[in-house]
Amino acid sequence: MSCQSFALDPRLGADTRLVASLPLSDVRLMNDARYAWLVLVPRRAGLVEITDLGDEEQAALWQEVNRAGRALRAVAPCDKLNLGALGNSVRQLHVHLVARCEGDAAWPGPVWGHGKAVGYAEAALHERLAALRQALDPTA
Amino acid sequence: MSCQSFALDPRLGADTRLVASLPLSDVRLMNDARYAWLVLVPRRAGLVEITDLGDEEQAALWQEVNRAGRALRAVAPCDKLNLGALGNSVRQLHVHLVARCEGDAAWPGPVWGHGKAVGYAEAALHERLAALRQALDPTA
Repeated sequence: MSCQSFALDPRLGADTRLVASLPLSDVRLMNDARYAWLVLVPRRAGLVEITDLGDEEQAALWQEVNRAGRALRAVAPCDKLNLGALGNSVRQLHVHLVARCEGDAAWPGPVWGHGKAVGYAEAALHERLAALRQALDPTA
Repeated sequence: MSCQSFALDPRLGADTRLVASLPLSDVRLMNDARYAWLVLVPRRAGLVEITDLGDEEQAALWQEVNRAGRALRAVAPCDKLNLGALGNSVRQLHVHLVARCEGDAAWPGPVWGHGKAVGYAEAALHERLAALRQALDPTA
């Protein structure tokens, strides 16, 4: 148990934009127009490994990953979803979910560490955020 | 539902050695001495995405990933576990679990696609497989 309150790692904050807050995790969009790329960050202080979450919260995290994956696929049809929890550079627990298309910038390699991010144009960013929020909304 | 029976993808088979069969997944060791690296392969035919598994089997997979992660850490202390399910090249569902050490060959980047595998020497391979089997055995 930790007395700290949750604060998003500033590097994650700089690279991503908030899509929506699910019960456990914030779903954030990587500001990299090369890929449709989400990052889920459980709002618990001091997490590094997935096993730092208790069993119930781990189950909740994977359910939220599935939910985010469905929304991502709905907005950005893809050939393969890539799931990753690395944390070598930013230790705060975060789970990547990337919609991969054959022939994309890093295909078939991983996206992490591949070239430089290409930020969205402002209008495209807002369009993608809106589409993802709608796809994530279970009441829609 | 599929009538096919499970068969390991031959590329996964060529790159890995069987450590142990858990109830759902085979735990296999990547034959790459640069990293302590496990691959879990659920023994179900036709799986590509994690969501191709039903809810109960997904829960079982994540429990087996945790169990394998504990064994891996016991055998190969590390700074960070890396978890990945990519499948861009080999589509058969498989989950990577890699014990990462600061300064290792790919640090802090991902291991996938980084350089060429360095096979274990025969004795070191058998030693690592034996240590992992012992660490995975809940009765040990």
